[in-house]
Amino acid sequence: MTAIDKRTHDRKFVRTFFTTPTAVEGEDDSAKMLKSAAGLRGMKAPDVWVPDNEDATAPNMREEGARNIIDVVSEHGAEFPGEIHPRVVWHRDSPSTRYQGFQRMLEITDPDNGAVEHLDGFVIPEVGDIDDWKKADEFFTIIEHEHGLEEGSLKMSVIVESGASELAMGKLRDEMGKPTNNLQRMFLLVDGEVDYTKDMRAITPTGGLPEWAELRHNTSRAASANGLIAVDGPYDDIRDVEGYHERMTDNRSKGMLGIWSLTPGQVVEANKAPLPPREGYWLLDADGREVELDHEDGVEVYEGDRVSIEATADGYVLSVGNDELAVDEAELEDELLDLLDYVPSLDDIVDSMEEFEAAKEAGRGAIAMTQSATVAIDGVEVDVSRDRMWDEATYQALQTPITLFQDVYGNRPDQHDDLADLYGENVLERAMDVGN
Amino acid sequence: MTAIDKRTHDRKFVRTFFTTPTAVEGEDDSAKMLKSAAGLRGMKAPDVWVPDNEDATAPNMREEGARNIIDVVSEHGAEFPGEIHPRVVWHRDSPSTRYQGFQRMLEITDPDNGAVEHLDGFVIPEVGDIDDWKKADEFFTIIEHEHGLEEGSLKMSVIVESGASELAMGKLRDEMGKPTNNLQRMFLLVDGEVDYTKDMRAITPTGGLPEWAELRHNTSRAASANGLIAVDGPYDDIRDVEGYHERMTDNRSKGMLGIWSLTPGQVVEANKAPLPPREGYWLLDADGREVELDHEDGVEVYEGDRVSIEATADGYVLSVGNDELAVDEAELEDELLDLLDYVPSLDDIVDSMEEFEAAKEAGRGAIAMTQSATVAIDGVEVDVSRDRMWDEATYQALQTPITLFQDVYGNRPDQHDDLADLYGENVLERAMDVGN
Amino acid sequence: MTAIDKRTHDRKFVRTFFTTPTAVEGEDDSAKMLKSAAGLRGMKAPDVWVPDNEDATAPNMREEGARNIIDVVSEHGAEFPGEIHPRVVWHRDSPSTRYQGFQRMLEITDPDNGAVEHLDGFVIPEVGDIDDWKKADEFFTIIEHEHGLEEGSLKMSVIVESGASELAMGKLRDEMGKPTNNLQRMFLLVDGEVDYTKDMRAITPTGGLPEWAELRHNTSRAASANGLIAVDGPYDDIRDVEGYHERMTDNRSKGMLGIWSLTPGQVVEANKAPLPPREGYWLLDADGREVELDHEDGVEVYEGDRVSIEATADGYVLSVGNDELAVDEAELEDELLDLLDYVPSLDDIVDSMEEFEAAKEAGRGAIAMTQSATVAIDGVEVDVSRDRMWDEATYQALQTPITLFQDVYGNRPDQHDDLADLYGENVLERAMDVGN
Repeated sequence: MTAIDKRTHDRKFVRTFFTTPTAVEGEDDSAKMLKSAAGLRGMKAPDVWVPDNEDATAPNMREEGARNIIDVVSEHGAEFPGEIHPRVVWHRDSPSTRYQGFQRMLEITDPDNGAVEHLDGFVIPEVGDIDDWKKADEFFTIIEHEHGLEEGSLKMSVIVESGASELAMGKLRDEMGKPTNNLQRMFLLVDGEVDYTKDMRAITPTGGLPEWAELRHNTSRAASANGLIAVDGPYDDIRDVEGYHERMTDNRSKGMLGIWSLTPGQVVEANKAPLPPREGYWLLDADGREVELDHEDGVEVYEGDRVSIEATADGYVLSVGNDELAVDEAELEDELLDLLDYVPSLDDIVDSMEEFEAAKEAGRGAIAMTQSATVAIDGVEVDVSRDRMWDEATYQALQTPITLFQDVYGNRPDQHDDLADLYGENVLERAMDVGN
Repeated sequence: MTAIDKRTHDRKFVRTFFTTPTAVEGEDDSAKMLKSAAGLRGMKAPDVWVPDNEDATAPNMREEGARNIIDVVSEHGAEFPGEIHPRVVWHRDSPSTRYQGFQRMLEITDPDNGAVEHLDGFVIPEVGDIDDWKKADEFFTIIEHEHGLEEGSLKMSVIVESGASELAMGKLRDEMGKPTNNLQRMFLLVDGEVDYTKDMRAITPTGGLPEWAELRHNTSRAASANGLIAVDGPYDDIRDVEGYHERMTDNRSKGMLGIWSLTPGQVVEANKAPLPPREGYWLLDADGREVELDHEDGVEVYEGDRVSIEATADGYVLSVGNDELAVDEAELEDELLDLLDYVPSLDDIVDSMEEFEAAKEAGRGAIAMTQSATVAIDGVEVDVSRDRMWDEATYQALQTPITLFQDVYGNRPDQHDDLADLYGENVLERAMDVGN
Repeated sequence: MTAIDKRTHDRKFVRTFFTTPTAVEGEDDSAKMLKSAAGLRGMKAPDVWVPDNEDATAPNMREEGARNIIDVVSEHGAEFPGEIHPRVVWHRDSPSTRYQGFQRMLEITDPDNGAVEHLDGFVIPEVGDIDDWKKADEFFTIIEHEHGLEEGSLKMSVIVESGASELAMGKLRDEMGKPTNNLQRMFLLVDGEVDYTKDMRAITPTGGLPEWAELRHNTSRAASANGLIAVDGPYDDIRDVEGYHERMTDNRSKGMLGIWSLTPGQVVEANKAPLPPREGYWLLDADGREVELDHEDGVEVYEGDRVSIEATADGYVLSVGNDELAVDEAELEDELLDLLDYVPSLDDIVDSMEEFEAAKEAGRGAIAMTQSATVAIDGVEVDVSRDRMWDEATYQALQTPITLFQDVYGNRPDQHDDLADLYGENVLERAMDVGN
């Protein structure tokens, strides 16, 4: 692995990016929310905590907010289980904003203030093209020299919220490694869809955000090409837990494994979501809609009416939408297998990987893993079974969730109890052993 | 704002790009269509008029077409309410075609011909990679010098209809501003999907055009990164007004706010479409399909059968698709609110922005705007109400439609009467006052 | 056309990319599958055959596999109807893997071994950024010099299976043509979605591959911008023929006209799929779902229930989903025409092109082609007819399938009989005459 591909930072994955206002008006203690966040543990604590001295803090409170960051991080930072990366102000179009961001970082990292030893880096918003990123990087380098910190030790993350920075990500690889910068300090690429939507001048009827599928693909791609980590932006409908999960599922299919969280409740959801499920479950392609079957007493039940089975004198009639098919029992099993997909649990994944690794050592390049179930539709129960072939490619595909799990388990001892409650101790230990 | 980000041209937005043949065979007056287009006013007149001396004019008529452009623009150009940008021939693979395009532009802009003072620029089709764009720019510069025009005064727009020019857009930012070219003259990036489909060698069963979502995203992105304006290609099913609007709605969600128009009827539709609606309306998520509710006597009515409500002894049963939920009145309101979205009118937007600006001046960073309605499904009427929080981000998101409105109102006095008929004078004046 | 845009290789299109293991363990003859593949003819034979000395062959068998390639290709290569491009090992992160790939190519192409005269090039997997592609190109050049082969005669194709190589495709145009490399030898850009999914760190619930629409768009775009040919990756559900065709249809809409095949059965499907159909057919937009009408006794029949027609006292009621419309006969025809689309057969396409070419020679720039049918819904028969206008743009759009057909017919004499059986000799001859 080249210097660039090899991550120079501790975490391989970041599931959660949690912002907190640094100074709140009208409170006795303006640092109240920072202190509350600093005390989070377990699933409520994010992988990356972002004391937010930009958008989450009113402009007239940001100076006080910087001092609050110093106070809270110096006092509580050592025990905080995740990484700490405050966001400061920055803007590609405003030299005075950039200078202000630099001054805040300089102040916050002053060793005399006692906070820097607990900080991992900073988040720079509103970046533009790659030369703008270099300006920020140069400020990081100056700060490291001014404070006697190791050069490159402060990690830099950016919020991609402009067309210019989306394009800049395509050039990052050529610029990192130049002797005139320290862009190897780069850590997270975070999409900021609200301001991105404004920069792109998009309009939607209700004012909701567009999907921005291409932006998320391009951010994930740049992260992979440069040894960085991709994170999606805020999901502001806090009550819509199902929608938050749908968004995360879509992001994961693009290789974007982290997301912004606005509340500890969202942190819990986003910390759990990328981990394999505790129980496996079956999905039925019900006339174009994927439906999760209900597991009831060992039977996988379909409750809808897009798919139906009727027993007849000489067999069955299987209806999917408007299509009807007369089948015998064997054909019914085949037709259902074409519509069924299985989502493996952590236990299933670890089982399969252990078996494959044993087979490889014994000189075999592939194994057969049987997936079977009893499926019930309209009261008709059908036993289905198939062998899934596992080869090197299947094995490699499962590296990502297992490596993510291992990265979480290895870096978040504060989450062990939650994970043990969820999965059971036994599979946790085995999960730490499989894989590369 | 840097020189590049700051638009050096008058219009911030272009809704309509209307092409007209420059010389038609078999007519007494081959300039007939040009003259007709030159007389368009109000909503029938485009923001950008393109006398088309390329694809819309038969090759053997193009020389006559160039003379027609001179005649019609010199005589009628002063009164034309929009900008005028003729399209000439050009091709990345053909030096003689490029030279011909140059000669036509040289002729058309000759001050002795009396047309150039009414022209704003030219449209260059079939461009290739960035060096090809520079060839065109160089010709513009030579023409300006030959005719004693101010350097950079002729704006250049391109039709992106090749993979090479799609890629070139990613390099534009680095090339603009080099002293060896005047690419700051760039104005519109226009997608030409018919020839793009040919260059990409795409095949569809019916011969219809593919979606090309990525091309439109990339064009919108390049426009944002370079202070240009993105415009979509022709929609050739003239009778399909609904389809034209659906396409424009999809484009707007990508930040592509302009579209090609082939007839004055399409110009009217495309001039209106990006403006906020005159009346607000509600959308119901009816089992995955977004349905606009009918406003009847102050009640928002759903007429379909994907969602139904049945009053029962102790409450209601709400059915969405196959899912049924027993609820009381409060729960019914909550469930419906989850499915409802409101599309604000221009009046709503201006109201909210005025209120937010007043709150900001009073030191408050957020306001609550109440959205409420009586919704009727299956004869069951439910009052719903919620507070939408408005903060700086919400306010910023609405800048785009308001800025577009202001750009239209400020540059198109010929459309004032149509806009007043549509919205009423009062909200027009207030709409000119809000925002940055 | 510039040197880059003009294809420097024989084939303009590649429909099929068929990999075969080069040495199989546990067989008397480890070259058995290579020999079997070498004997394929007609529709079972791919346009590009890839003896696969990388992923399809176990690591401990690859040395023997290289010798098998030499044996089989020297003996059978002359008669093989398609091109032959073995895949060797390569990896952007592993210098020793790259050196091994070089050594294998050097051995395989040794003129003393008698294989190189039947080889067309090599496939390089796991490439990274553009400098990595240049390393491979340099090895090709060294090999050509060592063996006295014409420089540039060995074509190079790559598997795009990393974010870095996806980005590299955007730079290819600037690098090809530099005097320090011979990247004009480039031929295919092949997406390898399994390892790409791993590099991007994507996770899906079932372990299935994500869509990767952007990757396929970008690969098609780079092929168009550089005179190369885009090919999609393996479709590993061999039994799912319908799914394979759906994937190919989606690819073709992006301009990606080739696909990987894993079995001769898949080769047959993928060789046929991009060719125009033998019979034209009608598509009905049935409430958002496109349904192919059944051709029964000269009538196009709709069998579903999303669209229905009921004859009434004074006309008809047309129902589409939940929308009902009372219409007379003429209105019914209009409404149906809005929902109908026609997929032309090869015969239809050739007819139309011949007629258009004749019209052009007679000085007319457009023709009207009538599409008509009798459509039956719920037993109600409606005659529909419309004129489709054909102009230069429509004509150009059909160049791609006709040029593909001509490229197949011209390069695959072994497929003439199959094509004649499918289409009839007469239309084949006419199809070779139309177009540019």
